[in-house]
Amino acid sequence: MSTPTDLGRRRLLASGTAAIAAAGIGGATRAVAQAAPPAAAAQAKPLPAYVSWKDADSMIVHSPNTVETRWSAFGSSLITPADRLYIRNNLAPPDVSIVANRDAWQLAVEGVKQPRTLTVADLKSLGVDALPMVLQCSGNGRGLFSDKASGTQWKVGAAGLVIWGGVPLRAVAEALGGVAPGMRFVTGTGGEAIPAGIDPKSVIVERSVPISALEDAMLAWEMNGEPIPHAHGGPLRLIFPGYSGVNNVKYIKRLAFTRDETDARIQQTRYRIVPPGGKGHPSMPAVWTMGTKSWINSPAPGQRPLRPGWVQIHGVAMGGMNAARRVEVSIDGGKTWRDAAFFGPNLGRYAWRQFVLQAQLRPGTHQLASRATDTQGNVQEERTPFNASGYLNAGWRAHMVQVTVA
Amino acid sequence: MSTPTDLGRRRLLASGTAAIAAAGIGGATRAVAQAAPPAAAAQAKPLPAYVSWKDADSMIVHSPNTVETRWSAFGSSLITPADRLYIRNNLAPPDVSIVANRDAWQLAVEGVKQPRTLTVADLKSLGVDALPMVLQCSGNGRGLFSDKASGTQWKVGAAGLVIWGGVPLRAVAEALGGVAPGMRFVTGTGGEAIPAGIDPKSVIVERSVPISALEDAMLAWEMNGEPIPHAHGGPLRLIFPGYSGVNNVKYIKRLAFTRDETDARIQQTRYRIVPPGGKGHPSMPAVWTMGTKSWINSPAPGQRPLRPGWVQIHGVAMGGMNAARRVEVSIDGGKTWRDAAFFGPNLGRYAWRQFVLQAQLRPGTHQLASRATDTQGNVQEERTPFNASGYLNAGWRAHMVQVTVA
Repeated sequence: MSTPTDLGRRRLLASGTAAIAAAGIGGATRAVAQAAPPAAAAQAKPLPAYVSWKDADSMIVHSPNTVETRWSAFGSSLITPADRLYIRNNLAPPDVSIVANRDAWQLAVEGVKQPRTLTVADLKSLGVDALPMVLQCSGNGRGLFSDKASGTQWKVGAAGLVIWGGVPLRAVAEALGGVAPGMRFVTGTGGEAIPAGIDPKSVIVERSVPISALEDAMLAWEMNGEPIPHAHGGPLRLIFPGYSGVNNVKYIKRLAFTRDETDARIQQTRYRIVPPGGKGHPSMPAVWTMGTKSWINSPAPGQRPLRPGWVQIHGVAMGGMNAARRVEVSIDGGKTWRDAAFFGPNLGRYAWRQFVLQAQLRPGTHQLASRATDTQGNVQEERTPFNASGYLNAGWRAHMVQVTVA
Repeated sequence: MSTPTDLGRRRLLASGTAAIAAAGIGGATRAVAQAAPPAAAAQAKPLPAYVSWKDADSMIVHSPNTVETRWSAFGSSLITPADRLYIRNNLAPPDVSIVANRDAWQLAVEGVKQPRTLTVADLKSLGVDALPMVLQCSGNGRGLFSDKASGTQWKVGAAGLVIWGGVPLRAVAEALGGVAPGMRFVTGTGGEAIPAGIDPKSVIVERSVPISALEDAMLAWEMNGEPIPHAHGGPLRLIFPGYSGVNNVKYIKRLAFTRDETDARIQQTRYRIVPPGGKGHPSMPAVWTMGTKSWINSPAPGQRPLRPGWVQIHGVAMGGMNAARRVEVSIDGGKTWRDAAFFGPNLGRYAWRQFVLQAQLRPGTHQLASRATDTQGNVQEERTPFNASGYLNAGWRAHMVQVTVA
């Protein structure tokens, strides 16, 4: 129980199926839980036109700029396809005409020894890489705090695992002579139009992250094997793996190495960890890297009652800047824990791992919980202290799934 | 030149960008090749209704049952999304109503000690895994043989990298008491309707593979994070990683461990490596596992002329049953070779790896080639001997890409 668990396929099979065979299959006597009936989706808001291509039954539309993946719509095959990936925009996206000629999109690079404007075509000549990453909204889990913060009440569905394709930002910086001396941040500016009559600083999507993030950052033009959909930031998106969604600026038009953080409101006072009842201030911690977190995707909340018997309890675990190394699962609300097994491919430190625990559940109500530990020994916290904006909720207790067996 | 090359991101950057910086960016002086103009697509056949959701600009419609991914539509972010994945059906798919209640789909399992019929819901209680695999049509590359075989003239686009989600077939067999004694094959039967008035054996999609394939086989209900699209075999598909497309039976309704190969025509005389001019016979090698193969995706054939300067020559390499261990690239039609670097995540032995070589191309015409070596030391052949049906073409010479620099 106390050692890291990373069973390969073979061992998982060997240990799991013997037990299953011994118990007999649920088979003919066992029906499996169904996802929430589609009727629920039918009553919900329709997808906004710019993301009408998404799988409507898999999504919850909170608003035109906030669309969540249903808890039950996460699969067990690792990747989150574009048509199930969440949407969260701080401003309305630019006109879709910007993807008519993707290679012509221009990016101004500043704070390097030889600043210049590069097209996506130029960037493609500088290097190529593929980078798997959990993309997760800073507010994912806000709706699972017992305290209520204003903002979208995301549960687990403002997150997904995607593979970006693009050029390492380091290659771009090096090709332009390297980062200018004294720079401490990387600042990205989005290409959204600023509504007329508004102070640009109050709404512009411009974020700064510590320059250490340069190490694995990417300027990406692809996601999951196709050009980044316009709704997800195409033609060009700035990617800081391990950093929460807002830092990964869409439609990036300016990339600057800077001495200081941007003075945009989204950086100075928003996306800060603010004490309950307080107001954001630059002295407070910025919402940057994500922490150790896991949750159970199946059984998902809201399913019909399960029949007694064997259940594959599976979900995802991540460490933010570090890979998950261990996941424990509890079927009694956190009183006792058992090591789950990882399954499927390991896509590296910035990706999530899938885990499974095979369990027999008796009739009654069960509280299923998961708790991840990352490669640095950081253990997922039981409760994330509430903050005024409800950011970065990773508490395992808030992510428990209640199931009924009947 | 003679050692395996598997550079990490860091080394790739360090070696690549110094050279780029030294040469200066193509930047303002360099336009990048564009994909073939969309006009070509506009003149082509429209997508069949059952796959109308695919990305039309990325696909070549050969016939209602054969749809290819354009050479230029492969990206550099590893995965092939469902809407760019090729289609090849041996029979018209069953009615789409079979995915209305996926968990109710029934599979008869035979040749085990306790044969029985299981639903997808039952299967989901037996185990869960995620399995990345190159799915490749047995005839991929047929159109690149200099000899012409009848059948779809696939180039490279009857292949893709997908991640399946499902239950290991071993777990199912073990739960049913294990494989019955004496069985030497695994035989899968598809659920397509047999047209009236035809001998079922002449058209039924029923394939047998050696029982050794049981080791890593899967009964899959998911692909790339969502339920398998009906057009790709949902609700349930039999997956034998490393085996060519036809062996991965869609809409699987019967899974049998058998003493002998099925007597269906698709097994007995079709999908055999037949000498040119000959006829298929059970004594000839069956089209089962795939071999060592690679090709260059970018630059793709048919692009506009490149400007002189640095080019990222990238593509994919696979070993069939073994991972690719090394890829060499030639820019002079195979006279000289340089080691390419792998990039992006490694999804295991059945997946392809992405490779890149940074090269400077002078004005003129260049023949770009790639040559893979797998972990067992098998080197991609220069020429695959032609066979009557044009199966399994993996010759590097046939897969060369000609580019013009002007």
